[in-house]
Amino acid sequence: MDELHRIPRHLLENFCAAAFERAGLSAEDSLLSARILVTADARGIPSHGVGRMMRYIRGLESRQMLPDAVPRILFESPVSLTVDANGGMGFPVSQRTMRKVIEKAQNVGMACACVRNSNHFGIAGYYAMMALKHDMIGVAMTNTAALGVPTFARQVMFGTNPLAFCAPADKLRPFVLDMATTAVTRGKLEVYDRLGKSLPDGWAVDATGQPAENPAVVLEDMLARRGGGLLPLGGFGDRYGGHKGYGLAVMVDILCALLAGAPTGPKVFDTPETSARVSHFFAAIRIASFTDPRQFKREMDEMLERLRNTPLANSQTRVFYAGEKEAEADEQNTQLGIPVDEQTLNSLQKIAIKYQLKEPLA
Amino acid sequence: MDELHRIPRHLLENFCAAAFERAGLSAEDSLLSARILVTADARGIPSHGVGRMMRYIRGLESRQMLPDAVPRILFESPVSLTVDANGGMGFPVSQRTMRKVIEKAQNVGMACACVRNSNHFGIAGYYAMMALKHDMIGVAMTNTAALGVPTFARQVMFGTNPLAFCAPADKLRPFVLDMATTAVTRGKLEVYDRLGKSLPDGWAVDATGQPAENPAVVLEDMLARRGGGLLPLGGFGDRYGGHKGYGLAVMVDILCALLAGAPTGPKVFDTPETSARVSHFFAAIRIASFTDPRQFKREMDEMLERLRNTPLANSQTRVFYAGEKEAEADEQNTQLGIPVDEQTLNSLQKIAIKYQLKEPLA
Repeated sequence: MDELHRIPRHLLENFCAAAFERAGLSAEDSLLSARILVTADARGIPSHGVGRMMRYIRGLESRQMLPDAVPRILFESPVSLTVDANGGMGFPVSQRTMRKVIEKAQNVGMACACVRNSNHFGIAGYYAMMALKHDMIGVAMTNTAALGVPTFARQVMFGTNPLAFCAPADKLRPFVLDMATTAVTRGKLEVYDRLGKSLPDGWAVDATGQPAENPAVVLEDMLARRGGGLLPLGGFGDRYGGHKGYGLAVMVDILCALLAGAPTGPKVFDTPETSARVSHFFAAIRIASFTDPRQFKREMDEMLERLRNTPLANSQTRVFYAGEKEAEADEQNTQLGIPVDEQTLNSLQKIAIKYQLKEPLA
Repeated sequence: MDELHRIPRHLLENFCAAAFERAGLSAEDSLLSARILVTADARGIPSHGVGRMMRYIRGLESRQMLPDAVPRILFESPVSLTVDANGGMGFPVSQRTMRKVIEKAQNVGMACACVRNSNHFGIAGYYAMMALKHDMIGVAMTNTAALGVPTFARQVMFGTNPLAFCAPADKLRPFVLDMATTAVTRGKLEVYDRLGKSLPDGWAVDATGQPAENPAVVLEDMLARRGGGLLPLGGFGDRYGGHKGYGLAVMVDILCALLAGAPTGPKVFDTPETSARVSHFFAAIRIASFTDPRQFKREMDEMLERLRNTPLANSQTRVFYAGEKEAEADEQNTQLGIPVDEQTLNSLQKIAIKYQLKEPLA
């Protein structure tokens, strides 16, 4: 595989923030956006990290994403908020909206918000995790351009529609579930394509709706909208619960987009003029609305400890709980430097040249 | 397969309600409980229907489930409610709690509740669906006795932990997702055992944590707590997303049990003295807190119609959305009579004799 470079976290953040500013974002929005991208790399999720910088820069410059968009509140109540991002970047509007949700939950006990007309917001878990230090459960979801095929069908009708859910623990790292509701994401098909490997059953279907083996064909057919696409969590048909993953994906569309009066499914797509205008959903639940937060967190520790200590399957070395691996990676990478592969480093260097910025690894 | 008998809906409800009364439940609780069970059969989910009557009757008579339990509110706020069911039946406390959640959501915009120390509450979808006629999104979850094995492990650590989510449509039937977070439930293994069939990969693991083929062995090992059990949605390992289903199951435990200060995972089990004391979670979100409910429902129609009309995979005849099939079954079975198999009819006849009740099919 590619060689990995390690870049000190603050240098990488500062570089990305500077680049975003050159692309037209405000200083504050630039820093917010950079932090979220670098957090994805730190947590071992490079698919959502700084490797996407060039895409955002191009989007901002071409005004497919509007650097100067001013979000508008469409509706507000003590427990709810509906926001129109007006085509701006997903990071700042999402972070500000989640902050408001947390404030409302502090006042009332819980709150939700939906955001429409937005752009890719990075890792859903970032926003959910903002609730943790307030002794709250956090939730974040987003719809995406359509890539997923309903059970028994052959054309895409929903996105990878990730959902994140987190809850704080006391001494242990928090529980952070952050998952696409499709079995895998398109990135996984791209990796298999590069490696020349066949797809396992249950990841994708071809243009006729049958299990697909050739990743290149699936990717081409999806791009040309000839049919085929990713399978929902649970895989092909209903034998393994594919209909459940399909249901979860639609649930995400309902909470993100329908509550916000925004498009869903195949109506969410990129054009040369505008990026796919996606919608998000955020929620926070104050634990003290139900029980003593200290007791809750101690019991979280106990449960999570029990899960980690589940007797292992033969030939396995460790049982994880959701978010544990990512938190460990974050701690390690913050110390050692954020890992960045050769291709990503090249793209950052191109951005440095373009904007006459000091390279992050200079 | 077994012969199916059809019993008029009101006769079956009345019979079950009368039996519950003889077992010590109040008249109102009896009717509530009967309705929920019969609704499961009507919707084509007999695993959660009147076939369980004998189990409930025995539980009530032996006081494993307390017919005279008085639920206690542990904490209440305008948006939240924590209830101790004090070991009573799950149906009445769940229905009353969801009613309160809906009232709160009518006042404030949204609300949640958790219930501890309860018993099996039937189909989660029933409680979620109570929100629909109020133009609300409804949510219901429950934990169950531990049957599911974490990714990379070999012992059970969580239940089948179902979650239900529903949203109203305008002219179309509502979207009602009601799913176990394990790939399949124990009932499915029992069916395969009766038929002498091997289990497909991805449903269960044996006592060493490897994919299990023999359903009889898995069922015995689970009962004797020798290891092995059901796999989470997404199946074996993390290749197909089994870690996601595992995460969803833990999420359900956090919302139901940890918020209520109740036991989770392997601490939830039946003893000769008490049934497994499970916990539930309920939520309602008023759509008008975000957008115009009429517009929302029209857009639901549009989205659901598009999903149903997704071009079919070869050799398939129909694409469903969640809850569509069940609503159709409910309408049909309400007209034709609720289908009851031979074995269930026999058990109802035994109850009729025991309590000197008129048989539902007399």
